[in-house]
Amino acid sequence: MSDDELLEGLLAGEHRALARVISKIENRAPGYRELVSALYAHTGEADVIGITGSPGAGKSTLVDKLAETYRDRGETVGIIAIDPSSPFTGGAVLGDRIRMASTVGDMDVFVRSMSARGTLGGLSTATADAVKAMDAFGKDKIIIETVGAGQNEIDIVRTADTVAVLVPPGSGDEIQTLKAGILEIADVFVVNKADRDGTDRTVQELRDMIQLDDGGGTSGGAGGGGGHHSQEVIDAHDDWDPEDDADEAEPEGWTTPIVETVATTGTGVEELIDEFANHRQYLVDSGEHAEQVRGRYAEEIRTLLREDVHAVLEDRLEAAGGIDDLAEAVREGETDPYAIADDLLTPVEECIDELETGNGNRGED
Amino acid sequence: MSDDELLEGLLAGEHRALARVISKIENRAPGYRELVSALYAHTGEADVIGITGSPGAGKSTLVDKLAETYRDRGETVGIIAIDPSSPFTGGAVLGDRIRMASTVGDMDVFVRSMSARGTLGGLSTATADAVKAMDAFGKDKIIIETVGAGQNEIDIVRTADTVAVLVPPGSGDEIQTLKAGILEIADVFVVNKADRDGTDRTVQELRDMIQLDDGGGTSGGAGGGGGHHSQEVIDAHDDWDPEDDADEAEPEGWTTPIVETVATTGTGVEELIDEFANHRQYLVDSGEHAEQVRGRYAEEIRTLLREDVHAVLEDRLEAAGGIDDLAEAVREGETDPYAIADDLLTPVEECIDELETGNGNRGED
Repeated sequence: MSDDELLEGLLAGEHRALARVISKIENRAPGYRELVSALYAHTGEADVIGITGSPGAGKSTLVDKLAETYRDRGETVGIIAIDPSSPFTGGAVLGDRIRMASTVGDMDVFVRSMSARGTLGGLSTATADAVKAMDAFGKDKIIIETVGAGQNEIDIVRTADTVAVLVPPGSGDEIQTLKAGILEIADVFVVNKADRDGTDRTVQELRDMIQLDDGGGTSGGAGGGGGHHSQEVIDAHDDWDPEDDADEAEPEGWTTPIVETVATTGTGVEELIDEFANHRQYLVDSGEHAEQVRGRYAEEIRTLLREDVHAVLEDRLEAAGGIDDLAEAVREGETDPYAIADDLLTPVEECIDELETGNGNRGED
Repeated sequence: MSDDELLEGLLAGEHRALARVISKIENRAPGYRELVSALYAHTGEADVIGITGSPGAGKSTLVDKLAETYRDRGETVGIIAIDPSSPFTGGAVLGDRIRMASTVGDMDVFVRSMSARGTLGGLSTATADAVKAMDAFGKDKIIIETVGAGQNEIDIVRTADTVAVLVPPGSGDEIQTLKAGILEIADVFVVNKADRDGTDRTVQELRDMIQLDDGGGTSGGAGGGGGHHSQEVIDAHDDWDPEDDADEAEPEGWTTPIVETVATTGTGVEELIDEFANHRQYLVDSGEHAEQVRGRYAEEIRTLLREDVHAVLEDRLEAAGGIDDLAEAVREGETDPYAIADDLLTPVEECIDELETGNGNRGED
């Protein structure tokens, strides 16, 4: 099948074409760039939801329930499960999710492993591209699920419109750890396994943490989501109605809710989906969504440029005798990395300067 | 003080000069490149030890004890404590360690926070440069300590000659988590807080894990340290003598030991230091050290080149109208990131091609 046919098939809603496009993206197969480039025009309709949280928080069970519930509502769902850990666990996760997908029939689940990726933004670029493919395919909801909750996962999940952070009950220590980076990205907190002891305490701790954050002061980390200034608790066991709280809603910013769920039984999942919808609505109404999309595109442009330029650098290194010889020269005290970098890049910079000052029409000479 | 004077002061063993060089490195202050470039010729003597492990494993207490013990043995010590988390915790850690350093007098402790760094290898480059400064200064032992044990910390700690991974007793779950990435980098396992319940079980679990790894099969993750093929347990409470095990030593590879310590009392710290020395000896004898150093320099060259070329890219982006306008153009469906990357980089690549085919003497025309 040619790339044009693949694209056509994907846009026509053929699952097999979608799967093939995503594996082209994953493998950086020849032609994948043109393919992704062509997808952009057909994207922008899907809601992208990121789910993160420490291992054992019940993420995959919750994601499965969310997908099921969305499908019961008549929405199509795609899942991208990111496993940035080593190959040790990749296999097991992949197996489980493929089993899950096969029972659902028309649902697409893709599990990606970081081991296959390069160092720089490779995984988040490929994830973003896979999201594009699902979006262009016509998925209504795309769920990005991470296995862990490290910095890489945070970077990935940040590419979603709405981010849910899962916290298991009774995890006081974990909430301490969460503070570093997770608080800033959470649009919704989910206390999953809420039928267990310690749920109330965990909800209270999250509430305290959010209020502490609200107090401001020493925070201000790079790239925080901003705008999380208050919180409300939704008890899955009550007849909760989002309208009830309308009077209390703060005029500016998003009110980060804490939702209690029991993923295994489905308790609270409807409420969680309502919160996702509320957040989406907020994003659109406030204009934050447009800003988010712009920021994401800016990041995509930067990452792509970097990937490309790294390939150029490798060529330069090869031309200079290869990285191994250069490293050995440093070890022998003949030179040092800074001197090597200067030697290799100064001509390139001169080249570009010439280009930008308009003397670069060498091709036409 | 001029940069030449700073360098002179550092090489003469002035602590104040060392501190100023390291803050120049941290801040990427003007002239820092030339300074680091000049340091290289004076490095290569120090043993660099990396300490990592999950929060609560007792890393900083152990590092303090290690430093104390080294100093009792007449060795000079420098510590670089890396806190890659958000600014939330940075302050507290910094405060503690500075207090600790001040009680020791001539010991140099630097705490670095990731928040100040760029995205790409910034922290590990700056850490490696700070290690160079301490090495050139004449420190015998340089300890790199990370606060957490995420991927970033693993990358940083990998710049050490010898890596110790701390595991608290009774942390079965944590050992599961450790498997992802940590096993490959551990040259020594340390079960700290070994006076607590669960020590024996944890030691056994580590032993099993190492044996499982030894079994081979599905591992083979990228960048693994390799060569960890067996293990031995050193009980801090026995009169253990490294010579005893000489007969059992395997001819090839390093035997990853498991050392039990109680950092608060100092139990096991001497044994741990002996293991560090054994590992250093192994590295030198096996030729692995030369290879390690070469690999590290190769990585430093690559990282530097990338940092530099990113600056060049930012200029290109500016020349093309700025990233914000480009992102907005994507949002409006006028173009896409792949097309933008091609537009920006194709002329640069042509430029370089010309350079490399020898037609690049435009300056002399």
